[in-house]
Amino acid sequence: MTASIITIGDEILIGQIVDTNSAWIAQQLGSLGIAVRCMMSIADTENEIEATLRSAIEQSQVVIVTGGLGPTNDDRTKQVLLRLFGGTMVSHGATLEHIRKLFAQRGKPLTESNRRQADVPSSCQVLFNASGTAPGMMFERDGHVLIALPGVPFEMQHIMETSALERLAQFAHTDTLYIRHAVLHTFGIAESHLSERLQAFERSLPSNIGLAYLPSPAGIRLRLSGSGGQRDTLEQQLARAMQMLEQEVGDYAFGHGETSLPLEVGKLLQQRGQTLATAESCTGGKVSHLITSIPGSSAYFKGGVVAYSNAIKQSVLGVSPNALECYGAVSQEVVGQMAEGARRLLSTDYAIATSGIAGPDGGTETKPIGLIYAAVSSEHQTVIERFQFGNLRHVNMERAAYSVINMLLAMLRKKGR
Amino acid sequence: MTASIITIGDEILIGQIVDTNSAWIAQQLGSLGIAVRCMMSIADTENEIEATLRSAIEQSQVVIVTGGLGPTNDDRTKQVLLRLFGGTMVSHGATLEHIRKLFAQRGKPLTESNRRQADVPSSCQVLFNASGTAPGMMFERDGHVLIALPGVPFEMQHIMETSALERLAQFAHTDTLYIRHAVLHTFGIAESHLSERLQAFERSLPSNIGLAYLPSPAGIRLRLSGSGGQRDTLEQQLARAMQMLEQEVGDYAFGHGETSLPLEVGKLLQQRGQTLATAESCTGGKVSHLITSIPGSSAYFKGGVVAYSNAIKQSVLGVSPNALECYGAVSQEVVGQMAEGARRLLSTDYAIATSGIAGPDGGTETKPIGLIYAAVSSEHQTVIERFQFGNLRHVNMERAAYSVINMLLAMLRKKGR
Repeated sequence: MTASIITIGDEILIGQIVDTNSAWIAQQLGSLGIAVRCMMSIADTENEIEATLRSAIEQSQVVIVTGGLGPTNDDRTKQVLLRLFGGTMVSHGATLEHIRKLFAQRGKPLTESNRRQADVPSSCQVLFNASGTAPGMMFERDGHVLIALPGVPFEMQHIMETSALERLAQFAHTDTLYIRHAVLHTFGIAESHLSERLQAFERSLPSNIGLAYLPSPAGIRLRLSGSGGQRDTLEQQLARAMQMLEQEVGDYAFGHGETSLPLEVGKLLQQRGQTLATAESCTGGKVSHLITSIPGSSAYFKGGVVAYSNAIKQSVLGVSPNALECYGAVSQEVVGQMAEGARRLLSTDYAIATSGIAGPDGGTETKPIGLIYAAVSSEHQTVIERFQFGNLRHVNMERAAYSVINMLLAMLRKKGR
Repeated sequence: MTASIITIGDEILIGQIVDTNSAWIAQQLGSLGIAVRCMMSIADTENEIEATLRSAIEQSQVVIVTGGLGPTNDDRTKQVLLRLFGGTMVSHGATLEHIRKLFAQRGKPLTESNRRQADVPSSCQVLFNASGTAPGMMFERDGHVLIALPGVPFEMQHIMETSALERLAQFAHTDTLYIRHAVLHTFGIAESHLSERLQAFERSLPSNIGLAYLPSPAGIRLRLSGSGGQRDTLEQQLARAMQMLEQEVGDYAFGHGETSLPLEVGKLLQQRGQTLATAESCTGGKVSHLITSIPGSSAYFKGGVVAYSNAIKQSVLGVSPNALECYGAVSQEVVGQMAEGARRLLSTDYAIATSGIAGPDGGTETKPIGLIYAAVSSEHQTVIERFQFGNLRHVNMERAAYSVINMLLAMLRKKGR
């Protein structure tokens, strides 16, 4: 069973707002075993809406439409739905009563356009909207279903959760295709190398399971997606495939499902009652920002120093003037001393440090833009790595930040690399 | 002239990621006077890609496609483009050379799938990708143009900014309707208050000029967009409207066009040869990250301290144990001492500090989640403000960071608030 998701509104087409409704709806449909084949954003004109809805309802058994139901003149969706599904426009009693109450509560007069919000085609089942004024509508014909919802995210979500999803589940139940996903997070290996490493694995996958690569500066997520008529069989197949995938990926894998490098590091530090500090040069605060973006990070993160100038590296972190002079700020000697200095200054179990040339200026022949040193220091050892990234400042800062957090995770897990 | 934007990738259709590329591209096209008529997200299968591209290029003069160009097996777009536009698959020399260099710099071997990334249909003009391995491609036929770009946002944006937009501007120039935009940046006023303040102004605008509100944690951008057949007349109208808008907005406005609070602060500090330090508690490094995201910020930013624990506030920043005990870490006394301590420790002209309760835990009746104190300290004075934000951790951190940078800008500009 497949679905199309259609969002209506000029504010999306001019790029003024990002459409987040479609992703949310897709997740909900996925959990019912309904696969989305297409998402579309279109303009708020009757012609465009009519042509798009006609073709969507032919191609998909489920069509979800959001937007185009407000009280202002630029909303045409209800007229189109009336033409497509027939009937007459009628006022929905419970919705009109609800609108009256809302306006009375706010002490505002009820206008004609407010009253018209309760009008719906007689061919629909109303999905009551307790969180706003525009009701949801569900139309069925020849084994296809169309649900129209307001575009405001919390109203849309509220109607989906209180009534639309249940109706869809009943509708989808005639179909027996289950869809399941499983995600493995990796870091520190390029997409092309990962894909070569996984060639044989991909070929060995049963035809109902597929592998996708989702790269970002925070790592590459590997997603296994499977479909099948037997839920238990599908889940067993997916579990087996994930086990094999983990073996192939080895130490580059760092977690499953909804996670991130800062979250994995945080879990281990919190479990062990250990603490962390940061000393940043080229990343300029990005590392501590990532660490503190995790709720509850104050349990293990004591603080950090952004040592952008050499004077601060000396005076606050205690880097030796000698090391700065002989090797320069971007060197393994200095980054190691920065990590050790931060650990001492802030009295923590671990400290991580970065020093590099983020760009766009400051590169030389021997120290080009994108050269980054990173260090992790514990009571027992200081580990230093050298990275050569690309030419873009913000990407270099982000990759350096995730790389040093990954080094810390490796040390916490006592992996050799 | 109209455009279709197509994003390819199963990760969008299952709702795992939100498509932000389309909104970004739509904004860029809008500034060239190209209106987006449709955005679509489709699956990574050859049939789906081919059918969608065929129909899009018939319906729109401009088609922008992102995604489906990676080195892995789940990318089919190039094969479809070859079928649609003809020619043979050829290796693009400059791209291959660039890929070679990237891998050599990183000390990694070049695989066959890496090499294949440089393959393009001979019917395209290559849009060089300095920030990644997959090149952009531009195809023209019968007055229609299709541009295919990688799906990774920063690579896509980089190619758009360095080559694709210029080519599109040349292409769009045959049309005689001029479209111009002008942006005013504001900070520190809610959208609803701004819109009340601007009601009369909006009514006074000529019919060919519109006003849009673009809110984000970095402030609300106000965009005036105008269209007309006479370029000079249009530009004069827009300049007049901008002048009036500035008067209405007053001190809440901080800049025009492509700018940001960290950039405006940086320009003034650099002009005056003055320096800055940060002391962060609740923002956890976000403030220094924003400051250092500006290229060349090392000229004025010396460094900062992330003092997440009270011990660090005392030992490193010199906050008095007395103030911490009497008033608590989240107080005007402590945040003021943090700013002064950072200015002393790092020997700078200015320092900014934050202390607050970002959430989701740690709120009390008298100090609820979202309570933030921020301070700016100079040789002459320390200014402190209290903010009450909402319940979301990451939003609170972001709003606090921009708020304290805005306070610094106000001091640098010697504005009274």
